[in-house]
Amino acid sequence: MKVALGQVPPDTVIENGVLVDVATRRLVDGIYISISEERIASISREKPKTDSKTKIIDANGAYLAPGLVDAHYHIESSRLSPRRHAQITLPHGTTTLFEGSHEICNPLGLDGIRYLLEEAEGLPQKIFIGLSSATPPTPYETTGSYIGGKEAEEALRLRGVSGIDEVMDYTALFGGEERLHSVIEAGLSSGKVVEGHGVPSPPQADALFATGVSSTHFSGDSAKAIALLERGCFLELKPRDSRQAIHELVTTNIDWQMVGMCVDDRPAESINQLGHLDYELRICIEEGLDPITAIQIATLNNARHWRKEHEVGIVAPGRRADIIFLTDLESFKIDRVMADGEIVAEKGKLTVNIPIMPAPDYVLNTIRLQKHLTSKDFEVRSPNNQSKVKAAVLRPFYFSVDLLPITRELQVEDGLVQRDLSHEVNKVAIIRRDGGGLGISFWELGYQYGAIAMSVLHDSHNISVIGANDADMARAVNRVAEMGGGIVVVKSGIIKADVPLPIAGLMTDKPLSEVVAGLDKVNEEAAKLVPGKLLGPNPVDTQTFIFLTCFPWSIVLTDKGLVNVRTGQWLPPVW
Amino acid sequence: MKVALGQVPPDTVIENGVLVDVATRRLVDGIYISISEERIASISREKPKTDSKTKIIDANGAYLAPGLVDAHYHIESSRLSPRRHAQITLPHGTTTLFEGSHEICNPLGLDGIRYLLEEAEGLPQKIFIGLSSATPPTPYETTGSYIGGKEAEEALRLRGVSGIDEVMDYTALFGGEERLHSVIEAGLSSGKVVEGHGVPSPPQADALFATGVSSTHFSGDSAKAIALLERGCFLELKPRDSRQAIHELVTTNIDWQMVGMCVDDRPAESINQLGHLDYELRICIEEGLDPITAIQIATLNNARHWRKEHEVGIVAPGRRADIIFLTDLESFKIDRVMADGEIVAEKGKLTVNIPIMPAPDYVLNTIRLQKHLTSKDFEVRSPNNQSKVKAAVLRPFYFSVDLLPITRELQVEDGLVQRDLSHEVNKVAIIRRDGGGLGISFWELGYQYGAIAMSVLHDSHNISVIGANDADMARAVNRVAEMGGGIVVVKSGIIKADVPLPIAGLMTDKPLSEVVAGLDKVNEEAAKLVPGKLLGPNPVDTQTFIFLTCFPWSIVLTDKGLVNVRTGQWLPPVW
Repeated sequence: MKVALGQVPPDTVIENGVLVDVATRRLVDGIYISISEERIASISREKPKTDSKTKIIDANGAYLAPGLVDAHYHIESSRLSPRRHAQITLPHGTTTLFEGSHEICNPLGLDGIRYLLEEAEGLPQKIFIGLSSATPPTPYETTGSYIGGKEAEEALRLRGVSGIDEVMDYTALFGGEERLHSVIEAGLSSGKVVEGHGVPSPPQADALFATGVSSTHFSGDSAKAIALLERGCFLELKPRDSRQAIHELVTTNIDWQMVGMCVDDRPAESINQLGHLDYELRICIEEGLDPITAIQIATLNNARHWRKEHEVGIVAPGRRADIIFLTDLESFKIDRVMADGEIVAEKGKLTVNIPIMPAPDYVLNTIRLQKHLTSKDFEVRSPNNQSKVKAAVLRPFYFSVDLLPITRELQVEDGLVQRDLSHEVNKVAIIRRDGGGLGISFWELGYQYGAIAMSVLHDSHNISVIGANDADMARAVNRVAEMGGGIVVVKSGIIKADVPLPIAGLMTDKPLSEVVAGLDKVNEEAAKLVPGKLLGPNPVDTQTFIFLTCFPWSIVLTDKGLVNVRTGQWLPPVW
Repeated sequence: MKVALGQVPPDTVIENGVLVDVATRRLVDGIYISISEERIASISREKPKTDSKTKIIDANGAYLAPGLVDAHYHIESSRLSPRRHAQITLPHGTTTLFEGSHEICNPLGLDGIRYLLEEAEGLPQKIFIGLSSATPPTPYETTGSYIGGKEAEEALRLRGVSGIDEVMDYTALFGGEERLHSVIEAGLSSGKVVEGHGVPSPPQADALFATGVSSTHFSGDSAKAIALLERGCFLELKPRDSRQAIHELVTTNIDWQMVGMCVDDRPAESINQLGHLDYELRICIEEGLDPITAIQIATLNNARHWRKEHEVGIVAPGRRADIIFLTDLESFKIDRVMADGEIVAEKGKLTVNIPIMPAPDYVLNTIRLQKHLTSKDFEVRSPNNQSKVKAAVLRPFYFSVDLLPITRELQVEDGLVQRDLSHEVNKVAIIRRDGGGLGISFWELGYQYGAIAMSVLHDSHNISVIGANDADMARAVNRVAEMGGGIVVVKSGIIKADVPLPIAGLMTDKPLSEVVAGLDKVNEEAAKLVPGKLLGPNPVDTQTFIFLTCFPWSIVLTDKGLVNVRTGQWLPPVW
């Protein structure tokens, strides 16, 4: 305020730039931006009074846009700690993240929130937290923690907690589950935001927003987009999965104020290759959205949705001085990034020191198996004396409740049900982090050799293992436990590659190069195990995502066994 | 939720209407709107399953727009109690008000909030409250109550309190006054909205938003509008005072998402004549704004600004069933109004019973003068022995700090400074509600005869009196006190007209017809006193507004005397 009034000189002045005004959707030149500490003080036509300590930044005619704001994001999916993650995403212009916290909350509960807030303290990248609504994700899996209405009320009193994240268990939601509805009620009572999940069609789309949920992160076509917008949904586009929808929405000439943008999940190596929200924004521009509107939806619109437009999302007085310098709007080429009033990156490189703090004890050693597993733990006994049994042979992204298409016959030897590797029928197990449960079933999924285990398992983050033989499955899981979490590739009893993820079993604070090298090695060794076609081009990534229990999944495997999450019916793996 | 899912039949279905979709800015036909209790359950293309108790409303092809949402409003200015006020504004389509509460808070403090919330309970018109930041409005006047940071924190915990209203004492704000800044800080900490006031130019515009203030209610030209929008201000248009600006903003083709709309103040008789937010909306359309955008800014945009888009501002699942039925968009002709799922008005007439509750004791008898005033109380003694003195002869809407243009010579008789009625120089006094203070000065303002006193005095709501003779001034003030507040016209010692406003000295719960008759009589009698030209066409209304002490006022009269509110310097009325 005093800087704006000319009573105190600014710390920094940016001159010779063209402001991208996301409030009116105009370009404005001939302006000076005065900055005091980490906030913008004024946007003036007259040169501000400065003193010898004022730093003058010549924008060289660059466009000055607000720092990018991701409306829905999971840092944990990068495999990096928040501070390591900031080091690689700030150069892409992401100065604010609305973090969905269910990944870290499932093992750690509110300690996960505490860790995120501690990491975010003093970081030029703002991390606002949506409290997990999915701890546990569904009643059909066991997580280390529990967040109900009482825990939600406690967390929502924290200033860094901006709402409730990603209500995604439609069965519980529409079934009136007390835990989930009390979490939503806590969110609404606090005046904060309750985020949704999924792309439901009517009447579920209506029912979702009738519960007080406000948004979803969106992949789909334009008809679905419009159906959701019409129902008052704030639509967080995932542009990479919605190219056609964006193209059509541009043609339809809709108002974009209820549209935002998000990355959602992206592993470190993909951020390195593709970029971050800047990559998504470029896709919007490629699909015909004018660049200023694209910038609006990735900044102001997201900030308004999360009720933080007084803090971020616009280059205006009182807001954090988060500014990206663009040499060209159409190509969205980022020259420099300012966050909290400091230039933090130039030409894609971080230019400030973001110190890495030692991970606190309470986020480490979250995997405690009690005992070493052996191949015996992965045997599936036949329920009868026949030479063959029937089995539910699941596959990724199978959303039907119909068992018939996935029922197969499997051979029995010595009373044990066998894999059918010639048809890519493999074993999959999910092991509770405390060793207290192990669910096992057959999947049309996996490898001809070895096993891969990991403690990244959306969203319970128990341990999953896919294996062509039981001994390698045991070896891989034991190694994950030894590392305190991570990803392990085993072949013939030998650890071929591993990436430790000791922070909540999900993240590491090692430098990017080391993590990428580790993940590259994991992928390379995974390929040598000859993955089946249903694992897709990135089998290790696929493994993290295929055990979800939320909408639109139906028959799934959890640490408790095979279950139809839409009805609550438990199913035997073989019969 | 259950109604949306078809598990429970809706209470009401609206069919055969055209939805005005304010999210995408499109018209949508072929829809059914299902309502459960006071909320919308779904918007479906298929006819919902109903039962014999479901009420079917045929919209007869009408446009179905969200109920109007006023972003900045003072119910007290209508002179009606909230429930009486709802009776006359619901037929105009106003289903939600964001009430700025400083009028009632100045006499009553947080009891004023309590009264508003009690009145709003069960009322189909939603009243969300912005807590007064202006109690007292400035340190230069005395009000019955005090609201600082502690009181603000207490009030902000109430669910019906949506933020801090109208930060308007720029001197205190820019001077860093502890009380005002602690109130703002309480607002920001609570995650709620902090409203601004005034149309400042840079650098004050920058400084205003640098303090965390988010908005202003706007009258002015388009250059000022754009300067405020660029600075991240949510612009609450007062269209009646901004016709040219609207016209130009339409031409400039700005984005409208940061633009809202408000009525601000309107006495009951004007609501009766002109209308309410519907009147303002029509002005926007007349100035070339397309009707759907005009509806957006009067509904969704205002709701989003106040962070209540999950409650009001859009016809969508989960929101209150507040719907206006329009036979024509261009003329914005309201056929029916639904609020909380019930038709509350048809063709401009209220169709439901809104019961009037007896006013609670704590809002009554707020004027306690201690003693009857006499003409002696209004004498102004000359400070010297000259036959003439100099006097600051104020006039309405004098915003300069320069005394010279308002300095006049006045005659002294028997040591007492005299009016100069031939030049319309009259006496004005402001009397504290508890009788503990009386400020007096000369004004180029007033009447050739009699006196008019009232307890509506923005924003301290002490008692003002303007009089052509001291005895009538005393008589008028005494009568205001006897009534517990109101407006009184006196001539030659006789009460010519009075309107009791016993609720906080500002409002009445008498029926509109009675109030309008009373106000008409007051205006008629005021005209007979021969008002001066500076009182304008509505002298009684003018008197309520000319004693403000906020920006952009400078030299003003308060209960403590004459003061320059920009510097804090006290001035003698004569010298």
